[in-house]
Amino acid sequence: MNQKLPFASDYQEGAHPDILKALADINLTPHAGYGTDEISASAREKIRAACNAPRADVFFLAGGTQTNAVVISACLKPYQGVFAAESGHVSLHEAGAIEHGGHKVMTLPQKDGKLSAETLRKAFATFEQDENKEHMVMPGMVYLSQPTEYGTLYSLSELKEISRLTHAAGALLYVDGARLAYALACPSNDVSLADLAELCDAFYIGGTKCGALFGEAVVFPQPDTVPHFFTIIKQNGALLAKGFVTGLQFDTLFTDGLYERCGQHAIAAAKRIRDALTEKHYTFAIDSPTNQLFLLLDREQEARLTEAVDMSFWERPDEEHVIMRIASSWATKDEDVDALIALL
Amino acid sequence: MNQKLPFASDYQEGAHPDILKALADINLTPHAGYGTDEISASAREKIRAACNAPRADVFFLAGGTQTNAVVISACLKPYQGVFAAESGHVSLHEAGAIEHGGHKVMTLPQKDGKLSAETLRKAFATFEQDENKEHMVMPGMVYLSQPTEYGTLYSLSELKEISRLTHAAGALLYVDGARLAYALACPSNDVSLADLAELCDAFYIGGTKCGALFGEAVVFPQPDTVPHFFTIIKQNGALLAKGFVTGLQFDTLFTDGLYERCGQHAIAAAKRIRDALTEKHYTFAIDSPTNQLFLLLDREQEARLTEAVDMSFWERPDEEHVIMRIASSWATKDEDVDALIALL
Amino acid sequence: MNQKLPFASDYQEGAHPDILKALADINLTPHAGYGTDEISASAREKIRAACNAPRADVFFLAGGTQTNAVVISACLKPYQGVFAAESGHVSLHEAGAIEHGGHKVMTLPQKDGKLSAETLRKAFATFEQDENKEHMVMPGMVYLSQPTEYGTLYSLSELKEISRLTHAAGALLYVDGARLAYALACPSNDVSLADLAELCDAFYIGGTKCGALFGEAVVFPQPDTVPHFFTIIKQNGALLAKGFVTGLQFDTLFTDGLYERCGQHAIAAAKRIRDALTEKHYTFAIDSPTNQLFLLLDREQEARLTEAVDMSFWERPDEEHVIMRIASSWATKDEDVDALIALL
Amino acid sequence: MNQKLPFASDYQEGAHPDILKALADINLTPHAGYGTDEISASAREKIRAACNAPRADVFFLAGGTQTNAVVISACLKPYQGVFAAESGHVSLHEAGAIEHGGHKVMTLPQKDGKLSAETLRKAFATFEQDENKEHMVMPGMVYLSQPTEYGTLYSLSELKEISRLTHAAGALLYVDGARLAYALACPSNDVSLADLAELCDAFYIGGTKCGALFGEAVVFPQPDTVPHFFTIIKQNGALLAKGFVTGLQFDTLFTDGLYERCGQHAIAAAKRIRDALTEKHYTFAIDSPTNQLFLLLDREQEARLTEAVDMSFWERPDEEHVIMRIASSWATKDEDVDALIALL
Repeated sequence: MNQKLPFASDYQEGAHPDILKALADINLTPHAGYGTDEISASAREKIRAACNAPRADVFFLAGGTQTNAVVISACLKPYQGVFAAESGHVSLHEAGAIEHGGHKVMTLPQKDGKLSAETLRKAFATFEQDENKEHMVMPGMVYLSQPTEYGTLYSLSELKEISRLTHAAGALLYVDGARLAYALACPSNDVSLADLAELCDAFYIGGTKCGALFGEAVVFPQPDTVPHFFTIIKQNGALLAKGFVTGLQFDTLFTDGLYERCGQHAIAAAKRIRDALTEKHYTFAIDSPTNQLFLLLDREQEARLTEAVDMSFWERPDEEHVIMRIASSWATKDEDVDALIALL
Repeated sequence: MNQKLPFASDYQEGAHPDILKALADINLTPHAGYGTDEISASAREKIRAACNAPRADVFFLAGGTQTNAVVISACLKPYQGVFAAESGHVSLHEAGAIEHGGHKVMTLPQKDGKLSAETLRKAFATFEQDENKEHMVMPGMVYLSQPTEYGTLYSLSELKEISRLTHAAGALLYVDGARLAYALACPSNDVSLADLAELCDAFYIGGTKCGALFGEAVVFPQPDTVPHFFTIIKQNGALLAKGFVTGLQFDTLFTDGLYERCGQHAIAAAKRIRDALTEKHYTFAIDSPTNQLFLLLDREQEARLTEAVDMSFWERPDEEHVIMRIASSWATKDEDVDALIALL
Repeated sequence: MNQKLPFASDYQEGAHPDILKALADINLTPHAGYGTDEISASAREKIRAACNAPRADVFFLAGGTQTNAVVISACLKPYQGVFAAESGHVSLHEAGAIEHGGHKVMTLPQKDGKLSAETLRKAFATFEQDENKEHMVMPGMVYLSQPTEYGTLYSLSELKEISRLTHAAGALLYVDGARLAYALACPSNDVSLADLAELCDAFYIGGTKCGALFGEAVVFPQPDTVPHFFTIIKQNGALLAKGFVTGLQFDTLFTDGLYERCGQHAIAAAKRIRDALTEKHYTFAIDSPTNQLFLLLDREQEARLTEAVDMSFWERPDEEHVIMRIASSWATKDEDVDALIALL
Repeated sequence: MNQKLPFASDYQEGAHPDILKALADINLTPHAGYGTDEISASAREKIRAACNAPRADVFFLAGGTQTNAVVISACLKPYQGVFAAESGHVSLHEAGAIEHGGHKVMTLPQKDGKLSAETLRKAFATFEQDENKEHMVMPGMVYLSQPTEYGTLYSLSELKEISRLTHAAGALLYVDGARLAYALACPSNDVSLADLAELCDAFYIGGTKCGALFGEAVVFPQPDTVPHFFTIIKQNGALLAKGFVTGLQFDTLFTDGLYERCGQHAIAAAKRIRDALTEKHYTFAIDSPTNQLFLLLDREQEARLTEAVDMSFWERPDEEHVIMRIASSWATKDEDVDALIALL
């Protein structure tokens, strides 16, 4: 077991204790299979309410790569690809899962992990004006992450502009919300679940990194965006027999504001760490307002911190420096934050 | 919540209480991601020991269709297909997941859910003798279920013969053990985990239907049967970030004989029900020794039983009869068995 | 070079001399690429006229397996499969090309190579009434061949009924016309190109076996049945740079009734052979009115004929008999027919 | 019919007249199907001799995108991708055909259409040193074009170094020779067919753009590099029934040096045009020694030339300039070259 201070990632612990308790409560009660049970129905209803999207289709899947792969391939036509930032999770870290499903990830330049509306506008225009476009991959979707892989956030006005031009180009907008709780709880965030439901064609509310044992909730704000999505989930091996286990987790997360509280806990911990780092004149590689902090460390700092703190290696920009990621989560313990700050 | 006696399937409840307890115990301890943690390592070691296969590769996936799809596509070359019984789970009930991965399921006639060695021998010979075989799908794998979808069992001698001729044809043998605990615990079974490891190229030990919340343990008895299977799992969206959650469940199931006990509980319940049915002169559609009983009911029996008992509809062979399935499980309550017997 | 009488198949020779002449005429004239040239446009227009389908989309592909694979995968949704006769070309002889594209071929029993409306009606009903249909492969298309792999023909009334019930089930009807010239020229045929255009969602007019060097003309009677089919062809590697070569062949075949004459030539040759066989009391395995004759030969007949005639082996129903196929074509020489008849 | 001077591309005409003549000669002689005929065997033998690769596997396919898609997917494991220049044909112009086969095209920066050994070395090292490499797409192949899409050439020493480091990384080297005749005939080229056979794991000798009606010859210098490639071709819909038509074209191209002569004709025409352009102080966007010339034209030049000459639009680097491509070919007429030069 790791004895260092655990700040390497936000998926190292199990589930929020309320979820384990809820599981124990219903453990020996029989439920219908494949998510057709009443608990899953309740969870879907609560998510629709939270998103102000009463007609939304909601499905529960097990993990982020699975969700991205199934949603993207289900939404795209065979001749379409998806625009994503070079740094997008689907571009880099998913072992080619999108291409395995037959679709090109068309990477675009990013800044702080974000795609700009201008970059997208140009990319759509380049395709549209290409005389040979029938020989090219048609952009059928824009993939964003909120927060991004660099912990940054799209503002509501940015998202509105991207939504507008994506739809004007006849494409769909999809938002990967693997860490969505940490966006929603961030003081500088102005994008709500209802905004996502209004602006996106599909998005997912991350559970795995935000308080659940596992599980992501896919939301299609407009019903029948993808007909027979249930069968598509099954065909992709992503349908759990005991769907009520995933349903129950989201039912618990969306009861009494638990999802918000999970987010707030991590953001508060990150703020304490960020403030201490600032005070000690550490350098941030990226100005990230959510639960991931990216530190640019010199050799001395690196040696000292990595001895006691479990962080994620990000990049080595030059021989003298390294970028390391510190992540807080719903499970971050106050005493670990104290200990980390004492070390800085 | 279902008020009828719950005999519809063996995946209606959560997990064996020992598993929930183990989860609670480690819930807030940080673990490495993607199954690289120590609990998963321990689970793999215990499974290798139980299979008498010290060099086996062991991987944990989430569900049965996923496991079948990932293992089969990883083992087959693009130009190969898989032989399966017409009644095989991969043939019928997986929404085309195998074909979605690019491979033909080549169905063969079955008897009581089983493929005979003779059927397989002929099928391999037909391919081998076809002058146009380079225009055909090459059989690259034989898919069996133990127990079968009809609750029946391959004997050790049957399995040895199938293994021998499959390997002689240059193909791989794969056994779907979604309900393997219920085969292992069956008095008439003579096939052990070590036998499977000796005779198969791949098999999986079912968790979802045998005591776990979810999860299946894939065993490749020979190491590197499929190079880079980890990446293949990831690419198929089947790699859980919190792999320790699946690892822990199998670690618990393979501690102190829990997997065996889960199987024995269901088999004992099934035996009580089978004996009572026999005594009351009910007709069995299939002679099934494991945890699934297939009853041929007339209209009167159907009306009476379906009012009080939750069973699975199987088939309507004629206007006057129906075949219904009763399934027991690790979670079957003695009082529900008593109540069912009283109704017969 | 084969010295036996050449009746093994209908794709052993090059192209009708008119096609080679037309090729030579335009050989050094520059043309636009990818089928955007004027000759291809003319060919499409002539095919639309022949099919009485003025708004049809027409595309030229290179071969039959390619055409089936591209059309079927383009028409089906990911969760759909295609109904086909057990004897259908897509079921058996295409090396799993349809499954390679991700779709299940759902085989149905056939009689003389044909699917009956009743078989299809039951198959659609079985799916529709299945409580678990969302876990199954949805039938999205019916695949027929005209003539069938056994040389038999669907009548207009049969085709109308199949079309009606396929559309009632929400599926598409697709007809493989690899040997369509030999159906159209058959005296007992009552299905015209215009009938196919009225009853099918897609069909192809075979060139490879009917007078062309290579090439098949796909007809979608309703425009935009498959949006961006051009790009789909490209993506499947099926778009020829010099599309005018395929276009020219069909332009020639559909000028001055050449396609009809190619068919009539083969049918006349087949009739002469069939009449002679009947007179000599040979046994036909199948009553086939088109250019393929299936002979049930005893050992003596087999020995005598195979020494001098190149036929196709079909099947050995028992130790004493063999079924051999004799095929005539647009290229069959009268003197070869004379020689064959003399041998009987 | 286009009345401008035809310099838009090298696939606008039919076939070298020797090929049409050869086709006419054998047109009505029956041949075995699917490339199992004697002419195809002869063509394969001639190609083996030309490549000094007596044990090579040689296959004939119909076009370039098809060849790239089939070869790349056949060579890669499911978890592997292919490195290619950003400007590579597989990256841009094939409608996602490689991704459609399930594999990521991992684009790398290019210079004049070429990948440098240093770029490749770094790209392999980045993968190898990535701690998370099991979550990434493994590079399994390097894709080059000779000549490149920009008409430039790899030197023998460059190719040797790329071959060495590709094999050191455990990957395969594949060369797209769509325009190979125009490399082989180029005075500055020092890479022979035998060099390609020694340094590559697979390459193809382009026919479509180099004198054939259609067709590309895939060469695997080591036998059984891809077992059952014949079946893979079939499964991808790329197997022509009348394989002798493709075989005959390559048999003719590799008889009496026709392939070399086709290349020389185009190179001589390109040289005349290049010299005239240089003399008239035109600006070349790329220094390309083969049959494609890339001109940077100002508005006046553009207006004047495009009125009379059919060229390919390449790019508009700024408002005042355009890059246009002039391509010569085996079919370029001397009088068209004269007329073009007179216009400059």
